[in-house]
Amino acid sequence: MGTNRNSLSVYALGGLNEIGKNMYAIEYGNDIVLIDCGNKFPDETLLGIDLIIPDMSYIIENQSRVRALILTHGHEDHIGGVPFFLKTINVPVYATRFTLGLVEIKLKEHRLLRESELIEIHSDSEVQIGDMEISFFKVNHSIPDCLGIVFNMPEGTIVHTGDFKFDLTPANNERPDIHKMANIGNKGVLLLLSESTNAERPGYTPSEQMVGKNLEQIFTQAKRKVIVSTFASNISRIQQVVDAAEKTNRKLALLGRSMMNVVKVAMDRGYLVIPKWMLIEARDIDELPPERVTILCTGSQGEALAALSRLSTGNFRDVEILPEDTVILAAGPIPGNEKNVTSIVDNLYKLGAHVIYGSGSSSGMHVSGHGYQEDLRLMLTLMKPKYFIPIHGEHRMLHHHRMLAESVGIEKGNTFILKNGDVVDIEHSIARSTRNIPSGDTYVDGVDVGDMEFVLRDRKQISEEGMLMAIIPINKHDKKLLSDPEFISRGFVDQNFTELRKGMNRITKETINELRDTDRGSWNLIKKRVKRSLAKYVKQHTKKEPMIVPILMDI
Amino acid sequence: MGTNRNSLSVYALGGLNEIGKNMYAIEYGNDIVLIDCGNKFPDETLLGIDLIIPDMSYIIENQSRVRALILTHGHEDHIGGVPFFLKTINVPVYATRFTLGLVEIKLKEHRLLRESELIEIHSDSEVQIGDMEISFFKVNHSIPDCLGIVFNMPEGTIVHTGDFKFDLTPANNERPDIHKMANIGNKGVLLLLSESTNAERPGYTPSEQMVGKNLEQIFTQAKRKVIVSTFASNISRIQQVVDAAEKTNRKLALLGRSMMNVVKVAMDRGYLVIPKWMLIEARDIDELPPERVTILCTGSQGEALAALSRLSTGNFRDVEILPEDTVILAAGPIPGNEKNVTSIVDNLYKLGAHVIYGSGSSSGMHVSGHGYQEDLRLMLTLMKPKYFIPIHGEHRMLHHHRMLAESVGIEKGNTFILKNGDVVDIEHSIARSTRNIPSGDTYVDGVDVGDMEFVLRDRKQISEEGMLMAIIPINKHDKKLLSDPEFISRGFVDQNFTELRKGMNRITKETINELRDTDRGSWNLIKKRVKRSLAKYVKQHTKKEPMIVPILMDI
Repeated sequence: MGTNRNSLSVYALGGLNEIGKNMYAIEYGNDIVLIDCGNKFPDETLLGIDLIIPDMSYIIENQSRVRALILTHGHEDHIGGVPFFLKTINVPVYATRFTLGLVEIKLKEHRLLRESELIEIHSDSEVQIGDMEISFFKVNHSIPDCLGIVFNMPEGTIVHTGDFKFDLTPANNERPDIHKMANIGNKGVLLLLSESTNAERPGYTPSEQMVGKNLEQIFTQAKRKVIVSTFASNISRIQQVVDAAEKTNRKLALLGRSMMNVVKVAMDRGYLVIPKWMLIEARDIDELPPERVTILCTGSQGEALAALSRLSTGNFRDVEILPEDTVILAAGPIPGNEKNVTSIVDNLYKLGAHVIYGSGSSSGMHVSGHGYQEDLRLMLTLMKPKYFIPIHGEHRMLHHHRMLAESVGIEKGNTFILKNGDVVDIEHSIARSTRNIPSGDTYVDGVDVGDMEFVLRDRKQISEEGMLMAIIPINKHDKKLLSDPEFISRGFVDQNFTELRKGMNRITKETINELRDTDRGSWNLIKKRVKRSLAKYVKQHTKKEPMIVPILMDI
Repeated sequence: MGTNRNSLSVYALGGLNEIGKNMYAIEYGNDIVLIDCGNKFPDETLLGIDLIIPDMSYIIENQSRVRALILTHGHEDHIGGVPFFLKTINVPVYATRFTLGLVEIKLKEHRLLRESELIEIHSDSEVQIGDMEISFFKVNHSIPDCLGIVFNMPEGTIVHTGDFKFDLTPANNERPDIHKMANIGNKGVLLLLSESTNAERPGYTPSEQMVGKNLEQIFTQAKRKVIVSTFASNISRIQQVVDAAEKTNRKLALLGRSMMNVVKVAMDRGYLVIPKWMLIEARDIDELPPERVTILCTGSQGEALAALSRLSTGNFRDVEILPEDTVILAAGPIPGNEKNVTSIVDNLYKLGAHVIYGSGSSSGMHVSGHGYQEDLRLMLTLMKPKYFIPIHGEHRMLHHHRMLAESVGIEKGNTFILKNGDVVDIEHSIARSTRNIPSGDTYVDGVDVGDMEFVLRDRKQISEEGMLMAIIPINKHDKKLLSDPEFISRGFVDQNFTELRKGMNRITKETINELRDTDRGSWNLIKKRVKRSLAKYVKQHTKKEPMIVPILMDI
C-alpha cells in the first residue's frame, strides 16, 4: 500500500429514505466498488410499473471506473436489480455461495449466466481492488451466508454491515463473527455504514431458536395436516420446519416455484439438510393420512400469485385445506402487507383451519432478521467508528439510528443523515457532505413470473412515448365484467388502432373470463394477466411496446 | 308484560365480517328496534365512492314496524350513517347526552335537526317499546358516555354490549357498571351480542391512566411547543392533555374543525374541563414563548385533509413545526393507515421535531378502547349467556371470540358466527340460524368536508346510469400535470359533451395548479378536490350528477 492519498467518496444510489432498491458505492481514486443492487415494488399510485431499481446514470457515465459489485446477501432488495445491472454494465460480481446460488437462478432466467463473471467469497476472503484491501465478516440475518464488508485504504477503513442482527443461538450454528468485528473496531474504523430497519424497536431482536421450539410444539399438537408459509430464503426457519416434521414423523411437500428453487439451491450447497425419506410431491399428499403431512409454501405476505393465497381460496391443484388442518404463517407481515395477510387468515378460518399468525414475534412463529436497538448499539460499540452513515431505512429509522449512535459515544455532528445521491467526501480523515450526484428510480416494465422480456423506462419516456390504459369495470366479488373495457392510448400511435382495439377488447375479456372460470381471480392476478396478454398482443401486432396500465374499477 | 310469545329475531345489516358500518336489529313481534347506524370507508379498488353505509332495503320495506334507533356511542362506525338513515326513514333516536351532541353536529350539517326526534338516555333510563323493556348499563370505551343495551322480553333477555373495554382506573372516573352487569347476568341472559375488535389480543387492555402519566412526563421534558394529535372524540385523552398542559403552565390551541366542534360539545355538556385561561387561537401561538404552548390537533391517522398532515408539510396557516418542538401521536394507527402515518412521521423528523409515535400501546401515548381477550372473557363471564353472537369484527376476530366464549363455558354450538343478513330466530328459548334477509352496501357519493349534498348509489345504478372518469397523469413528487386529463363517460350523455370536456379540462388544471401553488397537494387531497370541482361543474352545466372517478396516474 503506497502513501498515495486518493480522493475517497461514499454514497448511496438506493436504500436511503426507503426500504428496498439498495445500492451503495465506495469511490477511491480511480476505482468504484458497488455494494448490492436491489429492487423495490411500486406503491399503488404508480400504475402499470412492475419493479423499481436504482437509476444508474452516474454509474453508466463512469463505467470505466467500476471494478466490482459486491453482494452482502441474497434478499431481493439487495440482488433484485442484478440482472438489469449486468445487462447494462458487466463487471465481476462477488458473493457468498448461497447468494450466488440465488443470483444464478435470476441470471439463468435472463439468459445472462454465461457472460457473467461470478466470484465466490466467504468470510475469510481477501480481495484487492486498486488501493482497496477488501475483507469480510459473518453476520446473522434471515437468510444464510451473509457478510459485512471491510474496505481498508491508506485513507482509513470503511465498514458496511450488510443486513444483520446478533443471534447468539442461531438455528444453523452460523454464529456472528463478534471477535473479528471487535478486532476491526480496535484497528480503527473511519466510517461505518449500518442498517437501520429496526432502529425504532427497543431491546434485542429475539433469537431464531425460539421459533424452533414453538414449531415443535404446534407440530406435536396438530391432529391433521400442517401447512407452513414462510420466505423461501429463510433457510434456518425451513430447517426448523424440517426438524419439527422429522420429530413428528411427517413427510414434506413444497409448494410454490420459488420455494422449490431456493430449497434446491440450499440442499445442493449444503445449507439445508432434509432426510431422504421426507420429501414428497404435491400430488402424493392425498395418499397419506393427514397427520403425516407437512406442507411448506410461499405466500406469507399475502401475495396473490403465491401458494398460500391460492390455498386459502381453494384454488391450488392437488391440495386442499380441510377443517382441523393447522396453518402457520411463519413470517411477520412486512409493513404494507397486513391487509393482504389478514384477508387470507379470514379465508383460512372459513375453511375451518387452525391458524397461527401475528405481527412481529407475537405468534411465536417469526422473529425479525434485523437488529433491534441494542443489536445496533452493539455493532456501533464494536466498530466504534469516527463517522457514521445510517443506511437501509426510511427517514425516521435513520434518525433513530443517529440517536443510538450518539448514545454510545459517536460525536454529535459525525453522523450523516443522507438522501440517495448525497456524497460524503473524506480527506485527511475529515468527512463532509457538500455535493450530490444524480440518483432516482428506473422503472422496469414487463417483469412477471415467467416473463423474461422487460423494458426499462423513465418517467419522461413513459409520458411521451407510449402508454396504453385499459379501463376495466369489473365486480370485485364475482369478477364479472360490467361492460366493455375502454382503451386510452397516450403517445402510442398505430394506424390500425380500430382493429387493434377490437383485438384488445377480445383478449381482455378472454383473460378475465378464464380467471373467472377457475375462480382464481384476485385483483392483482387479474391485473397482471391482463397486462401480460395485452402486452403480448400489442407487440405481436404493432411491434411496439407501450406500457400497459390496467385500471380495474369495482363498481 | 303479557304471556304472549311473539316471534323473536336478531340480525346485523352491517358490522359482521367487517369493521365499520355497524347496524344491528332486534325484531320482537311487530316491533323492530335498530342498534347503531354507522359508515365505513371504501378500499382502493372502489374508485370514486366516498362512503359506505348499510343497505337498508329490508328496513325500508318494513318501515312501518321500525320503532326506534338506539345508538350505543358516538364513533363514526356507529353514527356515521344516521343522517342518511333519517332522510330515508324518520324514527326516534335514543342516545346519551354526548352521543347526541355529536349526532346533532351531523344533523345540522344535513339540515335535518328540526325534523328529527332525539331522545336523551342515560344508564338508568328505561324505555318501553312494544313488549320490549329496554334498559342500559355503562361501559368504558375511547369516547365518553357509552352504553350497553338490555332487551327484556317474555321470550328472554338479549344483551348488546356496544363497544367496550374494562378500565378500572378510567381517566374521567366513568367506571364500568360491573355490578349492574353481574345482576343482568344473574337474572339470566338468553343471547349476548359482544364486540370482537381485539379478540385476537391476549391479556387485558391497558388503562387510560397510563397515558396520562406518560403525557405529563413528556410535557415536563419538552423544551419548546408540544403538539398532540389524537381523535377528537377521545375526550378522556384530551382531558389528560389539558391536565398535562395545566401542570406545565402551557396554553392550548385547537387545530382542525372536528377537534374544535367536538371539544365544544364536550365542554358545553360537562364532559371536558378546560381552565378559562388556557384556550387560545391558532394565530396567537407565535406571540407566546414556545415552552408555553400546547397544540391539540386532528390527523393522527395520517388523513390528508387533517391538521397533522398539513403541519408536517409546512402548510397550516399561522402554525409552523420548528426544530426541537415535540409532536405526540396519541392514537395508534388503525390497521391500513400505517403508511400514511409513518409518512407524516418521516416529514416531522425532517422538520427537526422530536416525535413520539408507535403502534398499539408501544409509544405509551395510546391505549385501545376495545377489550383484549381477558376483557371479553370477563363480559362473557358476567353475562353468562345461553347463546352468543360475536359482532363488530372481521371473520378471524369473530372466530377468536367464539373460542373465548367456549373457554368460559358457553356450550359448543351455541355461538353463531354470522354474516350480515343472517337471521337468528329464537323460539321457546331455542335459537337457530336458518334464513337470511337482503343486506349489503349502499354507496354515498359526494360527501366531503363541507359538502352536504350527496347521492346514494348502488352498483347497478353506477354502471348503468352515470359515471365520469378523469384520467390525470401527474408527477407524484412535484404534482405537475404531465399532459391533458382524459375524460371517459359511461352511461352519462350530454349533447354538449365537447364543450363540457373543454370546461372540465380547464377546471381540472385549475384545481391541480391551485394545490401545487400552495404545495398542499397530497394524493388524496388532489383526488377529492378534483372530484368536487368537476361534480360541481358538471351539475351546473348539465343538471346531472354522474359519479366522478378521478384516476391519478403517477408516471
